[in-house]
Amino acid sequence: MSSNTHGNLIIGQSGGATAVINASLVGAVEAAMKDTRIDGIYGMRYGIQGLLKEDIIDLRQQPADLWPRLLVTPSAALGTCRYKLLEDDPERAIAILRHYNIHYMLYIGGNDSADTAHRLAQAAQHVDHDLQTISVPKTIDNDLPFTDHCPGYGSAARFIALATIDSTMNTISIPWHYPVKVIETMGRDAGWLAASSALGKRNEIDAPHIILMPEHTFNGERFLEQVEDIYRRLGYVIVVAAETIRDEHGQPLGSIGQVGTDAFQHPLLSGTAQYLVELVEQHLKLRARFEKPGDLQRMASNCISRTDRDEAYLVGKMGVHALLEGESDKMVTLVRHTEPVYSCTTDLVELAKVANEQKLMPAAYLDESKTMVTQAFYDYALPLIGGPLPQHAKLEMTRIHK
Amino acid sequence: MSSNTHGNLIIGQSGGATAVINASLVGAVEAAMKDTRIDGIYGMRYGIQGLLKEDIIDLRQQPADLWPRLLVTPSAALGTCRYKLLEDDPERAIAILRHYNIHYMLYIGGNDSADTAHRLAQAAQHVDHDLQTISVPKTIDNDLPFTDHCPGYGSAARFIALATIDSTMNTISIPWHYPVKVIETMGRDAGWLAASSALGKRNEIDAPHIILMPEHTFNGERFLEQVEDIYRRLGYVIVVAAETIRDEHGQPLGSIGQVGTDAFQHPLLSGTAQYLVELVEQHLKLRARFEKPGDLQRMASNCISRTDRDEAYLVGKMGVHALLEGESDKMVTLVRHTEPVYSCTTDLVELAKVANEQKLMPAAYLDESKTMVTQAFYDYALPLIGGPLPQHAKLEMTRIHK
Repeated sequence: MSSNTHGNLIIGQSGGATAVINASLVGAVEAAMKDTRIDGIYGMRYGIQGLLKEDIIDLRQQPADLWPRLLVTPSAALGTCRYKLLEDDPERAIAILRHYNIHYMLYIGGNDSADTAHRLAQAAQHVDHDLQTISVPKTIDNDLPFTDHCPGYGSAARFIALATIDSTMNTISIPWHYPVKVIETMGRDAGWLAASSALGKRNEIDAPHIILMPEHTFNGERFLEQVEDIYRRLGYVIVVAAETIRDEHGQPLGSIGQVGTDAFQHPLLSGTAQYLVELVEQHLKLRARFEKPGDLQRMASNCISRTDRDEAYLVGKMGVHALLEGESDKMVTLVRHTEPVYSCTTDLVELAKVANEQKLMPAAYLDESKTMVTQAFYDYALPLIGGPLPQHAKLEMTRIHK
Repeated sequence: MSSNTHGNLIIGQSGGATAVINASLVGAVEAAMKDTRIDGIYGMRYGIQGLLKEDIIDLRQQPADLWPRLLVTPSAALGTCRYKLLEDDPERAIAILRHYNIHYMLYIGGNDSADTAHRLAQAAQHVDHDLQTISVPKTIDNDLPFTDHCPGYGSAARFIALATIDSTMNTISIPWHYPVKVIETMGRDAGWLAASSALGKRNEIDAPHIILMPEHTFNGERFLEQVEDIYRRLGYVIVVAAETIRDEHGQPLGSIGQVGTDAFQHPLLSGTAQYLVELVEQHLKLRARFEKPGDLQRMASNCISRTDRDEAYLVGKMGVHALLEGESDKMVTLVRHTEPVYSCTTDLVELAKVANEQKLMPAAYLDESKTMVTQAFYDYALPLIGGPLPQHAKLEMTRIHK
């Protein structure tokens, strides 16, 4: 299809939702509404799963005040999915797209979603349906390759950095009550989110003191030594651990067999944080507890990074522009500029290169201990989380003497 | 001591910290600085435990810009304690107060702290030391009697209400991924915090769908029936459970023996939320997971209720005023007015009546199921959480037809 003919556009959201994925949707819809080459603007409900069921809604039939409100609404308003295409799905999807006269497809998602968009692009070529597909990056995990960072990460990172600052305030107010606290973040393969807990840390005393990332094998003895050493120096220890940390056998901490089976005789998954709490209590005889903010990491509407939201809007808009320029089978990427100040423009990369590839934390972002970030990580991540983090006030401890 | 002689004032913070307990400290210090009858303004570090160690700091020796910054800083800047007085502690404490020429004491805390203040007042009388003690209410648990509500609760309630709204957005975006979610709130005896999860609920479909409160015995069969019923109707279920829920034998859910013992051969406490997740997965074969925001409930600096902060400041200030009016052995209370709009003034109640008494959720705030709140609870709690909660935008689901 040449880039000046008409057709319908369909937009989908896929994978884990984020606090700003709707900003990409709004950016895309607003760009599409400005161009007369696009007729219908459709949404697939629950991503490709909805498309395969022909669960398609009309994005032109929305109240005028919806889009600015959706811009600041977390989660995926279209609904999302975590669905791996079956063998004959691409062909079925193309038949449906053809039926609805859809020639433009924008798919907002992470690695798996890029794979889906790529396979649809290939299938369309195979059956000779004029279809352009563009993928728009989105993931709190920040693990997509070729893009400087991923929309969604900045807001989740802001949440985790602030949660670490605030929650630690409680520990400091009464350190001996529960001297060891473990905060469990999301992150099955990449440590970007766990690492972001350090973004409010200004010195060695500030939390977190130990960050456990999926990229590095857990060594229990070393961990306990670190905890004990920090406890001796500060009187408390804040640990941030990604949800999946593996031991030297590749077994995730807190998985089957490590904590026992429950009364119902099925394996008990205690999770990383609870495992670490048990380990500390058992071996160091220190009171420990864990926190697991869960989906709030993705969704906290009062932790949205303005930068993240603006960039999510930008990649949505530029996705539509790319379609209108005749591009296909590509993902929008963010390109960082640092002069005169931080800013991002966009580029495109071929989906074949992106799909199912993961970008893990580079070695340069971790110090020798592999449990703390370096200045290079701060330089990378601080511009992404929007405004500065709060610096909480402290009393001067001027003693009264007898 | 008559109310127009001079003396030093000491202020302490005690019990679990809150997001606004420092506002009470600032209110007290600013009131004290305005009155020439007060000489030194001292702070005990870590409450009565610090006093007993003569760990006393000078609150007049602080940078001028500290107080407005501390007003918006969560947690207890003086440090706090959870300490039950030993038999000879009150007399020792009085000797120290006498030594430092302290005749005014303000103690910001919950039930146990009221008991401490009361015992010091009695001990001072016993050994004939001129001491006035006033207790200033503070607790996220909202369980102090005689006061309409407790400073600290409004901000924690705001956090929980918002966390429930936001986290549910994720479930709605992909309901079948984990159709059952359990959010665990604080609350060992009283359900005020768990109940506050409903403050953003505007209809039957909105979350939460089931609230489990410590005041009511857990019935597993009934719970599973409720979960199944809601799942059939909506496709997902959001449960909010207080950290301590007891079964018909008075045993807390997820405590010793109910989930098994771990590999280290010591009892495993899985906690309420994890117990409920296991129960649902085992009996209903539905994927379930839990979230446990932990100390963030007390400390979230971006969820502070303006009303809560203003009232925390007020009770601190009025505590000092009460001391200067010659009052002693009393706690400041909040008195609600509803005409023409919500507002609070303060009063005093004798500490002997307050100490170790708990105010649980009244029957009128719960419906027949005991797992959902009534309109009366909304009328009570909504004014306490500050501004309105966000109403997230939703797309109109106008279908495209073939």
